[in-house]
Amino acid sequence: MSLLVVGSVAFDAVETPFGKREKMLGGSATHFSLSASFFTDVRVVGVVGSDFGAEEIAVFKRHEVNTDDLERVPEGKTFFWRGRYDYDLNTAHTLDTQLNVFADFKPKLSAESKKSPFVFLGNIQPDLQREVREQMQDAKLVALDTMNLWIDIARESLVKTIEGVDILIINDAEARQLAEEPNLIRAARKILAWGPKALVVKRGEYGAAMFAGDSYFAIPAYPLESVFDPTGAGDTFAGGFMGYLAGSGATDEAAMRRAMIFGSVMASFNVEEFGTERVQRLTYDEINNRFRSFKQMTHFEEIPFERNARVRQ
Amino acid sequence: MSLLVVGSVAFDAVETPFGKREKMLGGSATHFSLSASFFTDVRVVGVVGSDFGAEEIAVFKRHEVNTDDLERVPEGKTFFWRGRYDYDLNTAHTLDTQLNVFADFKPKLSAESKKSPFVFLGNIQPDLQREVREQMQDAKLVALDTMNLWIDIARESLVKTIEGVDILIINDAEARQLAEEPNLIRAARKILAWGPKALVVKRGEYGAAMFAGDSYFAIPAYPLESVFDPTGAGDTFAGGFMGYLAGSGATDEAAMRRAMIFGSVMASFNVEEFGTERVQRLTYDEINNRFRSFKQMTHFEEIPFERNARVRQ
Repeated sequence: MSLLVVGSVAFDAVETPFGKREKMLGGSATHFSLSASFFTDVRVVGVVGSDFGAEEIAVFKRHEVNTDDLERVPEGKTFFWRGRYDYDLNTAHTLDTQLNVFADFKPKLSAESKKSPFVFLGNIQPDLQREVREQMQDAKLVALDTMNLWIDIARESLVKTIEGVDILIINDAEARQLAEEPNLIRAARKILAWGPKALVVKRGEYGAAMFAGDSYFAIPAYPLESVFDPTGAGDTFAGGFMGYLAGSGATDEAAMRRAMIFGSVMASFNVEEFGTERVQRLTYDEINNRFRSFKQMTHFEEIPFERNARVRQ
Repeated sequence: MSLLVVGSVAFDAVETPFGKREKMLGGSATHFSLSASFFTDVRVVGVVGSDFGAEEIAVFKRHEVNTDDLERVPEGKTFFWRGRYDYDLNTAHTLDTQLNVFADFKPKLSAESKKSPFVFLGNIQPDLQREVREQMQDAKLVALDTMNLWIDIARESLVKTIEGVDILIINDAEARQLAEEPNLIRAARKILAWGPKALVVKRGEYGAAMFAGDSYFAIPAYPLESVFDPTGAGDTFAGGFMGYLAGSGATDEAAMRRAMIFGSVMASFNVEEFGTERVQRLTYDEINNRFRSFKQMTHFEEIPFERNARVRQ
């Protein structure tokens, strides 16, 4: 089934201890849609400037991502982000942010886009996310990402937007901040009470967890000896997660658990090289082999301990 | 099979945001042996002072822990630790440490103790750990814990001690510091090259991981809404881990994976109340129910993604 993503399409300049790139394809909607494209038909809603050329569009086309709703502002420049990671690759240090055409981004959905049964509202201003949500009345599953900025400056609107979605996909710190509750389990309960049927929490090198009703599911991250560039890992995770659900058309909990694995698989590839480089040349065999590795690294036999002579009660 | 533990037996004074205790039974060997006692016969090697009374000994006795090698120094006082936890329960703030009789602790092993096939060398000076190890020539499985202090001031001796054990059970930060390598996977490979067949890494609220040869196993922590007192969680984990292995007599990888779960189960109970209070009144049903919860919260079906119309390679 078709999957719609709304978010940023950008150029990134990234420097890590292992190298640098001066201008590469980036943005939340880019990472998301390339990742999701391995599993389903993807439509991207975003905005770019005149500097966004045939080469960039070709990347989307190669992955069969529909760019009909990728608005092009001829007199504008594409969103640009420059960041640096130190040896602690967990923290991005922003050196420069030029919103450019993204500053006035108003998502415009074609009739075809409005029919997508699966929707991912990438990290943009919550009022805009809600406007998109309201145009997708027949959606089967709507997921949302956000960030600390919106929790800080637009909490009320954000909570209202969250009330209208099915799944929230955010990181550990954001979940605690959003719920104003340091304990993650209590934070999850509070957030789920607002309406979503599931909360997916990204924990970086510690993996990911999903709260759905009374059910809890948690997985480790794929063990990587070298993380090259973590930019876009979260959106790549979300792309694998939503892409798998849309591709299989399922939204039951068992499917969501497998979607968590596919999300983690995609994110683990994403960070192995700069930007979208690794994901761009991924194969299905690589994806499925790493999916199987997740089973191997989490499997144990369910054999309870047999009471023996030590029983004291 | 019998399990020997060498380590501290202490009195703890602990204050957390949820309450306080002025003097309660503590120490690494205490937490370890109570936890392990649910699975196997345990013998504790340690030292206490004259203030260590019948009430404390009775706790060990009730759990059938053999205290023949728990040395009593009539003119001395028991090791005392006072600590405080803030809302971030991950960090213990030490307010007072009185080593007392523990300062001159020299483990003395009876002939019976030397025959224990399973051994846990709790966190004491590495020369002492090695002396104990050398007296246990017929041991089937020897595990070791340590801390940042020994990595800082006795690295050479510690590495030599590690070369002679089967399993190292330490936390995340200790593994990285010990290997002088920020990436955990590379740190693990380096440590395993010294000799141990497995490295177990405790990650607090993020769970635990095990590196054994080329195999990697990782599990989340049990999700707790309130952590009351984290003191002794690591030793309680190690007690469940080693206790399960000794109790089942197995040391294969499948058993070690289940041991990781039982260790996590025991640690999750430990932190629910002060000191050893919760573990002291645990039942086998509680242990096995939580073991089953671990299966539920980590299980997913191994169904790879089927290539469909989207196949591009």
